[in-house]
Amino acid sequence: MSDSIHEQICIIGSGNWGSAIATKIGRNAAKLPFCHDTVSMWVFEEEVTLPESDKPVKLSEVINSKHENVKYLPGITLPSNIRAVPDLKEACQNATLLVFVLPHQFLPNLLPIIRANVHPTRCRGVSLIKGLDFDSKTKMPVLISKTIEEAMGRGFVCGVLMGANVANEVAMGKMCESTLAGNFGDDRINERIRQVFDEAPNFRVARIDDVAGAEACGALKNIVALGAGFVDALGLGGNTKAALIRVGLLDMAKFCGMFFEGVEQGTFLESCGMADLITTCYGGRNRKCAEEFAKLRLADESINIDQESCNALWTKIETELLHGQKLQGTLALQEVHSILESRKLEESFRLFSMIYNISFKGEPVSSMTDAIQVKKSFTEMLRRSSSRRLEIS
Amino acid sequence: MSDSIHEQICIIGSGNWGSAIATKIGRNAAKLPFCHDTVSMWVFEEEVTLPESDKPVKLSEVINSKHENVKYLPGITLPSNIRAVPDLKEACQNATLLVFVLPHQFLPNLLPIIRANVHPTRCRGVSLIKGLDFDSKTKMPVLISKTIEEAMGRGFVCGVLMGANVANEVAMGKMCESTLAGNFGDDRINERIRQVFDEAPNFRVARIDDVAGAEACGALKNIVALGAGFVDALGLGGNTKAALIRVGLLDMAKFCGMFFEGVEQGTFLESCGMADLITTCYGGRNRKCAEEFAKLRLADESINIDQESCNALWTKIETELLHGQKLQGTLALQEVHSILESRKLEESFRLFSMIYNISFKGEPVSSMTDAIQVKKSFTEMLRRSSSRRLEIS
Repeated sequence: MSDSIHEQICIIGSGNWGSAIATKIGRNAAKLPFCHDTVSMWVFEEEVTLPESDKPVKLSEVINSKHENVKYLPGITLPSNIRAVPDLKEACQNATLLVFVLPHQFLPNLLPIIRANVHPTRCRGVSLIKGLDFDSKTKMPVLISKTIEEAMGRGFVCGVLMGANVANEVAMGKMCESTLAGNFGDDRINERIRQVFDEAPNFRVARIDDVAGAEACGALKNIVALGAGFVDALGLGGNTKAALIRVGLLDMAKFCGMFFEGVEQGTFLESCGMADLITTCYGGRNRKCAEEFAKLRLADESINIDQESCNALWTKIETELLHGQKLQGTLALQEVHSILESRKLEESFRLFSMIYNISFKGEPVSSMTDAIQVKKSFTEMLRRSSSRRLEIS
Repeated sequence: MSDSIHEQICIIGSGNWGSAIATKIGRNAAKLPFCHDTVSMWVFEEEVTLPESDKPVKLSEVINSKHENVKYLPGITLPSNIRAVPDLKEACQNATLLVFVLPHQFLPNLLPIIRANVHPTRCRGVSLIKGLDFDSKTKMPVLISKTIEEAMGRGFVCGVLMGANVANEVAMGKMCESTLAGNFGDDRINERIRQVFDEAPNFRVARIDDVAGAEACGALKNIVALGAGFVDALGLGGNTKAALIRVGLLDMAKFCGMFFEGVEQGTFLESCGMADLITTCYGGRNRKCAEEFAKLRLADESINIDQESCNALWTKIETELLHGQKLQGTLALQEVHSILESRKLEESFRLFSMIYNISFKGEPVSSMTDAIQVKKSFTEMLRRSSSRRLEIS
């Protein structure tokens, strides 16, 4: 990237986390000399009704006039240089930095449009999407950042931003850390991209190389958080919860070491690793919904419910506690379980497997603690699992 | 140790944690073929009054007749083979395994008596004491286990048992993990000693070699927990707390790497490391008292209080919340700060130093977040600090 080219940033998505990160990116773009002042934010257009009127109005228009995402991040003022754009083609026109922060199910339809409109040679991406794809042919997990890179083609590089970043707290400016993973070219470019997100002292972004480890942590932590909800419902206290988090981190590291290349042990100690896992296991919707699931089960554990009833129970909880939004943890859990099952690795990942069995196969919630155990140390674990890394077959 | 010698176990101490671990040790000794059935527990004799009578009775007699430590672990039945002994000489007579679980201020007076009475050649120890000594001459931290080894002489080996082990939860049989650190001779002996403590599935003990790392974690975590209390009082939420815990673990690792030999990175991922730190930062008395301290300060931060007023405030909190018991975190903090100050290392340990300055030098509580930052990755941190390890001068 030559210095004459300014970064044209486009945020793809405008939900809760997208709007929160827009507060940082907007203020930084206005300040950083190498960025265009205006940051576009693609908005999946919908109509909202404001308290002061009965007439529904378009969300993008509200964002641009009131500088507030009244639906997904109410009460927080967005920087005035954040421009909501409902037309994707227009939003990403000539963009050099794409920030992906939307449900990943949207990607297949959007990526061809994005590819056709961004800056042809100087565009890079950072994904804030928490999830994993699953390749049914190779039976391997696929990183969303890789899916984006492949769809964008032409050597497009996509990193990730992951960390202990509950969106509302970030938006309110409460101090936290975040991890930018990716190597976008050279040190200068890496530092530029870090600066786009960093708002020290309250949003401290550290950069690492290991995209796979950081991104997988973002998906896998939600599985462990389901286990945390089960432990909470069982009334087991702080020791057990800490053991669950520790063993969960080890299973995460083992999974990453086995299925992805370039995973570094240190990643699990970054904000995207242990810090995000801790926050998610103490707060967060996955923990909460799992606690509710377990409480309903514990109320009558004699019924050995089948997969269909489990699904129905999760749907009921999603309807009641999340207004029908899908829980990320159970989605990731089903993907991870397919991978483990197809490779007969359930026994090697006892924690993940037990969380699956409780969530979908009617295993009693009280079995949770049986799976909180590990025989090997962390160091030995990652070394062994890396040496046993699976080749795509 | 030949197979013909049975382990004669003596627990030195009978407080809350001592009584809790006695439930595990007692049941194990009764079951394990290489242990004498009876386990003696040295009780610092005091008089207690039972609800059914007005006449005070001796605590040791109550423990032996009711099999319950009515004062320090009420409601939990101790195994009947735990024998409370108020006379130290009698308690440790011919002992081959000493379990130290008492305030470490008691040690200087007790160790000569213990040394003179245990089995002359076959005795080993495991310390459950959480604290650090400070050598005012060398200005170096001293492990309690080392103090014990030196006082016992004759090649006495002392390991430690540390972990996310809130005593009451352990006593109630709620599932947790613990870390036994020490190398007591060979694999067989190590496994024997592990089995004395382990009560799987609810008390899972893993053994590692690194005594220094495990023991120092047990003391240093209480310092970080004070910071957690400050963060809680500031109402900063889960992201900030997770960042504090993460950066706290890094400072702990850095401190250990700099001041002790043989510290292994993996130790910080064992139960004695991250798991104990998490439990202590969410529950625990150090967090709670620090939250109270911060709330009192925040109620009137305009007063720039001096060290004396800070001390008075802590004493008031100890009186009100701990019935006058001393907080371990502030004691460890003062020891660690003496070390850092005398070596001009305050800037290298910004988190510990800020917690000290808030606790004892009138620094505003709101400064806490300024110190939750780290520039280097965990791996790099430990590597660098080890290479800069200080020699005893």
